[in-house]
Amino acid sequence: MKKFSLIVAGGSGVRMGGEVPKQFMVLSEKPVLMHTLEAFYSYDPDIRIILVIPESHFGYWEELCRQYRFQLPHTRIAGGNTRFHSVKNGLGEIPEEGIVFIHDGVRPLIGRSTLLRCEELARQKGNAVPVIPASESVRWTDGDITRPLDRSRVMLVQTPQTFRVSLIKEAYGQPFTDEFTDDASVLEKAGYQIFLTEGNRENIKITWPYDLYMADAVMKSQARR
Amino acid sequence: MKKFSLIVAGGSGVRMGGEVPKQFMVLSEKPVLMHTLEAFYSYDPDIRIILVIPESHFGYWEELCRQYRFQLPHTRIAGGNTRFHSVKNGLGEIPEEGIVFIHDGVRPLIGRSTLLRCEELARQKGNAVPVIPASESVRWTDGDITRPLDRSRVMLVQTPQTFRVSLIKEAYGQPFTDEFTDDASVLEKAGYQIFLTEGNRENIKITWPYDLYMADAVMKSQARR
Repeated sequence: MKKFSLIVAGGSGVRMGGEVPKQFMVLSEKPVLMHTLEAFYSYDPDIRIILVIPESHFGYWEELCRQYRFQLPHTRIAGGNTRFHSVKNGLGEIPEEGIVFIHDGVRPLIGRSTLLRCEELARQKGNAVPVIPASESVRWTDGDITRPLDRSRVMLVQTPQTFRVSLIKEAYGQPFTDEFTDDASVLEKAGYQIFLTEGNRENIKITWPYDLYMADAVMKSQARR
Repeated sequence: MKKFSLIVAGGSGVRMGGEVPKQFMVLSEKPVLMHTLEAFYSYDPDIRIILVIPESHFGYWEELCRQYRFQLPHTRIAGGNTRFHSVKNGLGEIPEEGIVFIHDGVRPLIGRSTLLRCEELARQKGNAVPVIPASESVRWTDGDITRPLDRSRVMLVQTPQTFRVSLIKEAYGQPFTDEFTDDASVLEKAGYQIFLTEGNRENIKITWPYDLYMADAVMKSQARR
Protein backbone atom coordinates (compact mmCIF):
# COMPACT_ATOMS: atom_id res chain seq x y z
CA MET A 1 0.00 0.00 0.00
CA LYS A 2 1.43 3.36 -1.05
CA LYS A 3 2.47 5.79 1.68
CA PHE A 4 2.12 9.55 1.59
CA SER A 5 3.39 12.22 3.92
CA LEU A 6 1.39 15.44 3.82
CA ILE A 7 3.44 18.07 5.61
CA VAL A 8 1.68 21.32 6.47
CA ALA A 9 3.76 24.40 7.20
CA GLY A 10 1.49 27.36 6.83
CA GLY A 11 2.14 29.27 10.00
CA SER A 12 3.19 32.87 9.79
CA GLY A 13 5.26 32.58 12.94
CA VAL A 14 3.57 35.36 14.87
CA ARG A 15 4.26 33.73 18.26
CA MET A 16 8.01 33.50 17.61
CA GLY A 17 8.17 37.26 17.59
CA GLY A 18 10.60 37.27 14.68
CA GLU A 19 10.26 37.73 10.97
CA VAL A 20 11.20 34.23 9.90
CA PRO A 21 8.32 31.73 10.22
CA LYS A 22 9.42 28.96 12.55
CA GLN A 23 9.42 26.24 9.89
CA PHE A 24 12.29 28.10 8.21
CA MET A 25 14.35 28.75 11.33
CA VAL A 26 17.68 27.00 11.43
CA LEU A 27 18.10 24.08 13.78
CA SER A 28 21.26 22.00 13.81
CA GLU A 29 22.56 23.61 10.63
CA LYS A 30 19.46 23.58 8.45
CA PRO A 31 15.87 24.85 8.43
CA VAL A 32 13.41 23.00 10.69
CA LEU A 33 11.29 21.96 7.72
CA MET A 34 14.16 20.10 6.06
CA HIS A 35 14.63 17.97 9.17
CA THR A 36 10.92 17.18 9.09
CA LEU A 37 10.98 16.04 5.47
CA GLU A 38 14.11 13.99 6.12
CA ALA A 39 12.46 12.18 9.02
CA PHE A 40 9.82 10.79 6.66
CA TYR A 41 12.28 10.03 3.92
CA SER A 42 14.51 8.09 6.29
CA TYR A 43 11.45 6.23 7.59
CA ASP A 44 10.67 5.06 4.06
CA PRO A 45 12.58 6.28 0.98
CA ASP A 46 9.59 5.28 -1.18
CA ILE A 47 7.18 7.55 0.67
CA ARG A 48 5.69 10.33 -1.43
CA ILE A 49 6.10 13.69 0.31
CA ILE A 50 3.62 16.50 -0.30
CA LEU A 51 4.60 19.82 1.22
CA VAL A 52 1.86 22.42 1.72
CA ILE A 53 3.15 25.96 2.26
CA PRO A 54 1.68 29.39 1.53
CA GLU A 55 2.19 30.39 -2.07
CA SER A 56 3.98 33.52 -0.86
CA HIS A 57 6.70 31.29 0.62
CA PHE A 58 7.42 29.35 -2.59
CA GLY A 59 10.30 31.57 -3.65
CA TYR A 60 11.93 31.61 -0.24
CA TRP A 61 11.68 27.83 0.07
CA GLU A 62 13.29 27.36 -3.36
CA GLU A 63 16.09 29.68 -2.35
CA LEU A 64 16.61 27.74 0.89
CA CYS A 65 16.69 24.43 -1.01
CA ARG A 66 19.38 25.83 -3.30
CA GLN A 67 21.38 27.30 -0.47
CA TYR A 68 21.33 24.10 1.62
CA ARG A 69 21.60 21.81 -1.41
CA PHE A 70 18.39 20.13 -0.32
CA GLN A 71 17.37 17.69 -3.03
CA LEU A 72 14.93 15.39 -1.33
CA PRO A 73 12.05 14.76 -3.74
CA HIS A 74 8.75 16.37 -2.77
CA THR A 75 5.69 17.97 -4.34
CA ARG A 76 5.06 21.55 -3.31
CA ILE A 77 1.42 22.65 -3.00
CA ALA A 78 -0.07 26.03 -2.11
CA GLY A 79 -1.81 26.24 1.27
CA GLY A 80 -5.26 27.65 1.91
CA ASN A 81 -6.64 30.21 4.33
CA THR A 82 -6.86 27.78 7.24
CA ARG A 83 -5.11 24.55 8.14
CA PHE A 84 -8.27 22.71 7.03
CA HIS A 85 -8.04 24.19 3.57
CA SER A 86 -4.31 23.55 3.35
CA VAL A 87 -4.78 19.87 4.20
CA LYS A 88 -7.66 19.64 1.75
CA ASN A 89 -5.46 21.09 -1.00
CA GLY A 90 -2.75 18.56 -0.15
CA LEU A 91 -5.16 15.63 -0.16
CA GLY A 92 -6.24 16.68 -3.65
CA GLU A 93 -2.76 15.66 -4.79
CA ILE A 94 -3.28 12.05 -3.69
CA PRO A 95 -5.16 10.11 -6.35
CA GLU A 96 -4.45 6.60 -5.08
CA GLU A 97 -5.52 4.57 -2.07
CA GLY A 98 -2.91 4.26 0.65
CA ILE A 99 -1.90 5.54 4.05
CA VAL A 100 -1.33 9.25 4.60
CA PHE A 101 0.63 10.78 7.47
CA ILE A 102 -0.60 14.36 8.00
CA HIS A 103 2.17 16.13 9.87
CA ASP A 104 3.07 19.56 11.25
CA GLY A 105 6.10 20.94 9.44
CA VAL A 106 7.35 22.31 12.76
CA ARG A 107 7.67 18.87 14.39
CA PRO A 108 11.10 17.79 13.16
CA LEU A 109 11.67 15.32 16.02
CA ILE A 110 9.04 12.80 15.00
CA GLY A 111 10.41 9.37 15.92
CA ARG A 112 10.64 6.27 13.76
CA SER A 113 8.84 4.14 16.33
CA THR A 114 5.93 6.60 16.45
CA LEU A 115 5.67 6.40 12.65
CA LEU A 116 5.65 2.61 12.81
CA ARG A 117 2.88 2.60 15.43
CA CYS A 118 0.82 5.12 13.49
CA GLU A 119 1.13 3.21 10.24
CA GLU A 120 0.27 -0.12 11.84
CA LEU A 121 -2.80 1.20 13.65
CA ALA A 122 -4.06 3.18 10.65
CA ARG A 123 -3.79 0.05 8.50
CA GLN A 124 -5.88 -1.87 11.03
CA LYS A 125 -8.43 0.72 12.10
CA GLY A 126 -8.38 3.39 9.43
CA ASN A 127 -6.85 6.09 11.62
CA ALA A 128 -4.20 6.63 14.27
CA VAL A 129 -3.48 9.65 16.44
CA PRO A 130 -0.21 9.80 18.42
CA VAL A 131 -0.59 11.14 21.96
CA ILE A 132 1.43 11.46 25.13
CA PRO A 133 -0.03 11.63 28.62
CA ALA A 134 0.21 14.96 30.44
CA SER A 135 3.18 14.86 32.79
CA GLU A 136 1.87 17.67 34.97
CA SER A 137 -1.28 18.37 36.91
CA VAL A 138 -4.01 19.73 34.68
CA ARG A 139 -6.81 22.21 35.37
CA TRP A 140 -9.92 23.10 33.46
CA THR A 141 -10.69 26.81 33.44
CA ASP A 142 -13.94 28.58 32.78
CA GLY A 143 -13.64 32.28 33.52
CA ASP A 144 -12.67 32.61 37.18
CA ILE A 145 -13.64 29.07 38.03
CA THR A 146 -11.08 26.32 37.71
CA ARG A 147 -11.20 22.66 38.60
CA PRO A 148 -8.65 19.86 38.49
CA LEU A 149 -8.83 17.27 35.71
CA ASP A 150 -7.72 13.66 36.18
CA ARG A 151 -4.42 13.93 34.39
CA SER A 152 -4.28 10.21 33.62
CA ARG A 153 -7.17 10.83 31.21
CA VAL A 154 -5.73 13.93 29.57
CA MET A 155 -3.72 13.26 26.44
CA LEU A 156 -1.66 15.80 24.52
CA VAL A 157 -2.14 15.26 20.81
CA GLN A 158 0.79 15.15 18.38
CA THR A 159 1.11 14.53 14.69
CA PRO A 160 1.34 12.74 12.26
CA GLN A 161 -2.31 11.91 12.50
CA THR A 162 -2.44 8.98 10.11
CA PHE A 163 -5.30 7.79 7.93
CA ARG A 164 -6.46 5.51 5.19
CA VAL A 165 -6.55 7.92 2.24
CA SER A 166 -10.15 7.20 1.23
CA LEU A 167 -11.47 7.83 4.76
CA ILE A 168 -9.76 11.16 5.30
CA LYS A 169 -10.61 12.38 1.80
CA GLU A 170 -14.25 11.58 2.48
CA ALA A 171 -14.08 13.48 5.79
CA TYR A 172 -12.46 16.51 4.17
CA GLY A 173 -15.43 16.65 1.80
CA GLN A 174 -17.47 18.14 4.66
CA PRO A 175 -18.03 21.88 4.84
CA PHE A 176 -15.55 23.71 7.08
CA THR A 177 -16.49 24.55 10.67
CA ASP A 178 -14.57 26.11 13.56
CA GLU A 179 -14.80 22.83 15.44
CA PHE A 180 -12.09 21.37 13.21
CA THR A 181 -9.02 21.80 15.41
CA ASP A 182 -7.07 18.95 13.88
CA ASP A 183 -7.51 16.15 11.33
CA ALA A 184 -8.90 13.74 13.89
CA SER A 185 -11.72 16.17 14.66
CA VAL A 186 -12.59 16.27 10.95
CA LEU A 187 -12.79 12.47 10.75
CA GLU A 188 -14.72 12.32 14.01
CA LYS A 189 -17.31 14.76 12.69
CA ALA A 190 -17.81 12.38 9.76
CA GLY A 191 -18.86 9.73 12.27
CA TYR A 192 -15.71 7.69 12.76
CA GLN A 193 -14.15 6.61 16.06
CA ILE A 194 -10.62 7.89 16.69
CA PHE A 195 -7.82 5.51 17.71
CA LEU A 196 -4.90 6.67 19.81
CA THR A 197 -1.37 5.36 19.91
CA GLU A 198 1.76 6.38 21.77
CA GLY A 199 3.69 9.35 20.41
CA ASN A 200 7.23 10.27 21.42
CA ARG A 201 7.91 12.93 24.02
CA GLU A 202 10.63 14.61 21.92
CA ASN A 203 8.12 15.23 19.13
CA ILE A 204 7.44 18.80 20.20
CA LYS A 205 5.82 21.43 18.05
CA ILE A 206 8.26 24.31 17.64
CA THR A 207 6.14 27.24 18.74
CA TRP A 208 8.31 29.35 21.03
CA PRO A 209 11.99 30.37 20.82
CA TYR A 210 12.58 28.12 23.80
CA ASP A 211 11.39 25.10 21.78
CA LEU A 212 14.23 25.68 19.32
CA TYR A 213 16.81 25.38 22.11
CA MET A 214 15.17 22.18 23.26
CA ALA A 215 14.98 20.68 19.81
CA ASP A 216 18.62 21.57 19.21
CA ALA A 217 19.63 19.87 22.46
CA VAL A 218 17.67 16.74 21.59
CA MET A 219 19.22 16.57 18.12
CA LYS A 220 22.71 16.90 19.56
CA SER A 221 22.07 14.19 22.11
CA GLN A 222 20.69 11.90 19.39
CA ALA A 223 23.73 12.56 17.22
CA ARG A 224 26.03 11.53 20.09
CA ARG A 225 24.36 8.11 20.46
CA MET B 1 5.87 39.61 55.51
CA LYS B 2 8.33 36.75 55.83
CA LYS B 3 8.83 34.51 52.79
CA PHE B 4 9.44 30.78 52.84
CA SER B 5 10.35 28.36 50.11
CA LEU B 6 9.35 24.79 50.80
CA ILE B 7 11.16 22.62 48.27
CA VAL B 8 10.04 19.02 48.01
CA ALA B 9 12.37 16.47 46.44
CA GLY B 10 11.14 13.10 47.52
CA GLY B 11 11.05 11.21 44.25
CA SER B 12 12.94 7.97 43.94
CA GLY B 13 13.58 8.59 40.26
CA VAL B 14 12.00 5.39 38.99
CA ARG B 15 11.01 6.95 35.66
CA MET B 16 14.57 8.09 34.91
CA GLY B 17 15.61 4.46 34.71
CA GLY B 18 18.85 5.20 36.54
CA GLU B 19 20.04 4.88 40.08
CA VAL B 20 20.43 8.55 40.83
CA PRO B 21 17.12 10.27 41.70
CA LYS B 22 16.59 13.08 39.23
CA GLN B 23 16.92 15.88 41.82
CA PHE B 24 20.56 14.83 42.24
CA MET B 25 21.43 14.52 38.57
CA VAL B 26 23.99 16.98 37.33
CA LEU B 27 22.81 19.80 35.11
CA SER B 28 25.17 22.56 33.98
CA GLU B 29 27.89 21.46 36.40
CA LYS B 30 25.87 20.88 39.56
CA PRO B 31 22.94 18.81 40.85
CA VAL B 32 19.47 19.92 39.73
CA LEU B 33 18.38 20.58 43.31
CA MET B 34 21.14 23.13 43.88
CA HIS B 35 19.92 25.14 40.89
CA THR B 36 16.41 25.06 42.35
CA LEU B 37 17.52 26.36 45.74
CA GLU B 38 19.63 29.05 44.08
CA ALA B 39 16.65 30.29 42.05
CA PHE B 40 14.79 31.13 45.28
CA TYR B 41 17.84 32.57 46.96
CA SER B 42 18.53 34.85 44.02
CA TYR B 43 14.86 35.89 44.00
CA ASP B 44 15.19 37.01 47.61
CA PRO B 45 18.31 36.44 49.72
CA ASP B 46 16.17 36.80 52.86
CA ILE B 47 13.83 33.95 51.94
CA ARG B 48 13.93 30.99 54.32
CA ILE B 49 14.45 27.76 52.41
CA ILE B 50 13.12 24.48 53.78
CA LEU B 51 14.22 21.41 51.86
CA VAL B 52 12.19 18.24 52.30
CA ILE B 53 13.99 15.07 51.18
CA PRO B 54 13.74 11.42 52.25
CA GLU B 55 15.76 10.75 55.40
CA SER B 56 17.66 8.07 53.49
CA HIS B 57 19.05 10.80 51.21
CA PHE B 58 20.42 13.00 54.02
CA GLY B 59 23.93 11.57 53.86
CA TYR B 60 24.15 11.75 50.10
CA TRP B 61 22.93 15.34 50.04
CA GLU B 62 25.50 16.34 52.66
CA GLU B 63 28.20 14.70 50.62
CA LEU B 64 27.05 16.55 47.47
CA CYS B 65 27.02 19.86 49.34
CA ARG B 66 30.62 19.24 50.44
CA GLN B 67 31.73 18.16 47.01
CA TYR B 68 30.17 21.15 45.22
CA ARG B 69 31.00 23.58 48.05
CA PHE B 70 27.29 24.40 48.27
CA GLN B 71 26.78 26.69 51.24
CA LEU B 72 23.42 28.25 50.63
CA PRO B 73 21.56 28.31 53.97
CA HIS B 74 18.60 25.92 54.19
CA THR B 75 16.80 23.73 56.71
CA ARG B 76 16.70 20.06 55.82
CA ILE B 77 13.57 18.12 56.83
CA ALA B 78 12.70 14.44 56.44
CA GLY B 79 9.96 13.66 53.90
CA GLY B 80 6.94 11.47 54.51
CA ASN B 81 5.43 8.53 52.65
CA THR B 82 3.60 10.69 50.14
CA ARG B 83 4.08 14.18 48.79
CA PHE B 84 1.19 15.29 51.06
CA HIS B 85 3.02 14.07 54.14
CA SER B 86 6.30 15.60 52.98
CA VAL B 87 4.70 19.01 52.52
CA LYS B 88 2.95 18.69 55.86
CA ASN B 89 6.28 17.94 57.56
CA GLY B 90 7.80 20.96 55.91
CA LEU B 91 4.94 23.26 56.90
CA GLY B 92 5.49 22.14 60.49
CA GLU B 93 8.81 24.00 60.34
CA ILE B 94 7.10 27.32 59.65
CA PRO B 95 5.93 28.91 62.88
CA GLU B 96 5.26 32.41 61.57
CA GLU B 97 2.74 34.01 59.26
CA GLY B 98 4.01 34.78 55.79
CA ILE B 99 3.98 33.60 52.19
CA VAL B 100 5.15 30.10 51.32
CA PHE B 101 6.23 28.93 47.87
CA ILE B 102 5.78 25.15 47.67
CA HIS B 103 8.00 23.99 44.86
CA ASP B 104 9.12 20.80 43.12
CA GLY B 105 12.84 20.25 43.64
CA VAL B 106 13.07 19.07 40.03
CA ARG B 107 11.95 22.40 38.55
CA PRO B 108 15.22 24.31 38.46
CA LEU B 109 14.11 26.69 35.70
CA ILE B 110 11.53 28.59 37.72
CA GLY B 111 11.62 32.18 36.52
CA ARG B 112 11.89 35.35 38.55
CA SER B 113 8.82 36.86 36.90
CA THR B 114 6.73 33.80 37.76
CA LEU B 115 7.84 34.12 41.39
CA LEU B 116 6.87 37.78 41.41
CA ARG B 117 3.42 37.02 39.98
CA CYS B 118 2.86 34.18 42.45
CA GLU B 119 3.89 36.27 45.43
CA GLU B 120 1.74 39.22 44.40
CA LEU B 121 -1.39 37.13 43.79
CA ALA B 122 -0.95 35.05 46.96
CA ARG B 123 -0.66 38.26 48.99
CA GLN B 124 -3.92 39.52 47.48
CA LYS B 125 -5.99 36.37 47.30
CA GLY B 126 -4.34 33.89 49.66
CA ASN B 127 -3.13 31.54 46.95
CA ALA B 128 -1.58 31.49 43.50
CA VAL B 129 -1.02 28.62 41.08
CA PRO B 130 1.24 29.16 38.04
CA VAL B 131 -0.08 27.59 34.84
CA ILE B 132 0.66 27.59 31.14
CA PRO B 133 -1.92 26.92 28.43
CA ALA B 134 -1.60 23.66 26.53
CA SER B 135 0.18 24.35 23.25
CA GLU B 136 -1.17 21.20 21.58
CA SER B 137 -4.57 19.72 20.90
CA VAL B 138 -5.89 17.87 23.92
CA ARG B 139 -8.09 14.78 24.21
CA TRP B 140 -9.97 13.26 27.09
CA THR B 141 -9.81 9.48 27.21
CA ASP B 142 -12.06 7.03 28.94
CA GLY B 143 -11.23 3.48 27.95
CA ASP B 144 -11.62 3.23 24.18
CA ILE B 145 -13.63 6.40 23.93
CA THR B 146 -11.84 9.68 23.39
CA ARG B 147 -13.14 13.18 22.81
CA PRO B 148 -11.47 16.49 22.09
CA LEU B 149 -11.18 19.10 24.86
CA ASP B 150 -11.18 22.82 24.17
CA ARG B 151 -7.47 23.43 24.59
CA SER B 152 -7.93 27.09 25.41
CA ARG B 153 -9.49 25.93 28.68
CA VAL B 154 -6.87 23.33 29.55
CA MET B 155 -4.05 24.60 31.75
CA LEU B 156 -0.90 22.71 32.66
CA VAL B 157 -0.08 23.29 36.30
CA GLN B 158 3.42 24.19 37.49
CA THR B 159 4.92 25.05 40.85
CA PRO B 160 5.58 26.96 43.07
CA GLN B 161 2.01 26.91 44.23
CA THR B 162 2.07 29.83 46.61
CA PHE B 163 0.02 30.44 49.74
CA ARG B 164 -0.55 32.50 52.80
CA VAL B 165 1.02 30.29 55.47
CA SER B 166 -2.02 30.21 57.77
CA LEU B 167 -4.36 29.09 54.94
CA ILE B 168 -2.23 26.24 53.67
CA LYS B 169 -1.42 25.03 57.18
CA GLU B 170 -5.14 24.92 57.93
CA ALA B 171 -5.77 22.95 54.72
CA TYR B 172 -3.00 20.47 55.50
CA GLY B 173 -4.78 19.76 58.79
CA GLN B 174 -7.32 17.71 56.80
CA PRO B 175 -7.00 13.93 56.69
CA PHE B 176 -5.15 12.62 53.64
CA THR B 177 -7.10 11.39 50.62
CA ASP B 178 -6.06 10.18 47.17
CA GLU B 179 -7.74 13.21 45.62
CA PHE B 180 -4.83 15.38 46.76
CA THR B 181 -2.77 15.57 43.60
CA ASP B 182 -1.13 18.87 44.40
CA ASP B 183 -1.24 21.63 47.04
CA ALA B 184 -4.01 23.52 45.27
CA SER B 185 -6.26 20.45 45.49
CA VAL B 186 -5.67 20.35 49.27
CA LEU B 187 -6.65 24.00 49.68
CA GLU B 188 -9.62 23.54 47.36
CA LYS B 189 -10.90 20.62 49.43
CA ALA B 190 -10.82 22.95 52.44
CA GLY B 191 -13.31 25.15 50.60
CA TYR B 192 -11.14 27.86 49.06
CA GLN B 193 -11.20 29.11 45.49
CA ILE B 194 -7.95 28.67 43.56
CA PHE B 195 -6.37 31.58 41.68
CA LEU B 196 -4.23 31.05 38.60
CA THR B 197 -1.38 33.13 37.28
CA GLU B 198 1.00 32.78 34.36
CA GLY B 199 3.93 30.40 34.80
CA ASN B 200 6.96 30.29 32.53
CA ARG B 201 7.24 27.75 29.75
CA GLU B 202 10.86 26.85 30.63
CA ASN B 203 9.76 25.79 34.11
CA ILE B 204 9.60 22.11 33.22
CA LYS B 205 9.54 19.27 35.71
CA ILE B 206 12.55 17.09 35.09
CA THR B 207 10.94 13.69 34.71
CA TRP B 208 12.55 12.01 31.72
CA PRO B 209 16.19 11.91 30.55
CA TYR B 210 15.09 14.07 27.62
CA ASP B 211 14.06 16.82 30.06
CA LEU B 212 17.65 17.05 31.29
CA TYR B 213 18.88 17.80 27.76
CA MET B 214 16.24 20.45 27.42
CA ALA B 215 17.00 22.05 30.77
CA ASP B 216 20.67 22.07 29.95
CA ALA B 217 20.00 23.80 26.64
CA VAL B 218 17.83 26.41 28.30
CA MET B 219 20.45 27.12 30.96
CA LYS B 220 23.15 27.53 28.34
CA SER B 221 21.00 29.91 26.31
CA GLN B 222 20.21 31.93 29.45
CA ALA B 223 23.89 32.10 30.36
CA ARG B 224 24.67 33.52 26.92
CA ARG B 225 22.28 36.42 27.41
